[in-house]
Amino acid sequence: MVVLGVDPGSNVTGYGLIEKKNNQLACVHFGLIRPPAKAPFYQRIYHIFREIEDIIASYGPNEMAIEDIFYAKNIKSSLKLAHARGAILAAAGHSGLGVFEYSPLEIKKSVVGYGRAMKEQVRDMIRVILKLREEPSLDASDALAAAVCHLNWTRFSDFATTRHHGKSGK
Amino acid sequence: MVVLGVDPGSNVTGYGLIEKKNNQLACVHFGLIRPPAKAPFYQRIYHIFREIEDIIASYGPNEMAIEDIFYAKNIKSSLKLAHARGAILAAAGHSGLGVFEYSPLEIKKSVVGYGRAMKEQVRDMIRVILKLREEPSLDASDALAAAVCHLNWTRFSDFATTRHHGKSGK
Repeated sequence: MVVLGVDPGSNVTGYGLIEKKNNQLACVHFGLIRPPAKAPFYQRIYHIFREIEDIIASYGPNEMAIEDIFYAKNIKSSLKLAHARGAILAAAGHSGLGVFEYSPLEIKKSVVGYGRAMKEQVRDMIRVILKLREEPSLDASDALAAAVCHLNWTRFSDFATTRHHGKSGK
Repeated sequence: MVVLGVDPGSNVTGYGLIEKKNNQLACVHFGLIRPPAKAPFYQRIYHIFREIEDIIASYGPNEMAIEDIFYAKNIKSSLKLAHARGAILAAAGHSGLGVFEYSPLEIKKSVVGYGRAMKEQVRDMIRVILKLREEPSLDASDALAAAVCHLNWTRFSDFATTRHHGKSGK
């Protein structure tokens, strides 16, 4: 079972792939998608779509875990983020991948044990859990955290994934 | 020259194709995309992507015209709209279509001559301009209006499209 975690953004989208084997989690790969800054907006959104498709084709994940959109930031950047997220969800659908959404609170709680943890704490914990030699960027560690969160849910309960899967119909 | 106009929405996305021949505009086709209401959100977003791809494959438009996102509605529905829009932009990129964005004000002004026109006025004018026998729904007429707006810009000036094309890099 390989899960693709994604931390969406129109400027930087983090991603990370985690494999679960014999109840152990291992990092397969992680990285960043950075669309060309000067390209028209629609081309940047398409760039994200294409990269996500490529990652799915290269690593064959079984499911995608992605952070719920949050409303805290300013409206303009939230709308850009939502565009990126739409392209990522479309890429998942296009590749036949199921998508599971988790709130930032659920992800942090699942990784650090505390819903209001800082991004740096999440990264440090992700590094420990996955025994990473190099330090991932905060966007990549957030993506890995979404995947860990999903695998933690599925580890303990089959109902959990159903719940989250269904919840997405908002 | 065939232009695909799109009026994005996560529940209903309107679309319309207009051909410009000998400086005359003719409606090729219009309709609505309605993702299954009970499907998870990501599947509804993917449904829109797939339908837009199918429409592009069936009618072979040269360019896409789409309304700029507006901030007036409540944040939750704007974020859903932005997801749909992200999937539509990704579909355009995936099919190699150039995308041109116009503000609601530009579209209304171009069709009705008045930037604060009601949707019904836009529809009535679209019906006259395109000599439509049947009355399109408001979502479809908004999509046709985006296409008419784009063809009006390109009719008078080659600079206009360049400007709008570039403007999208926001």
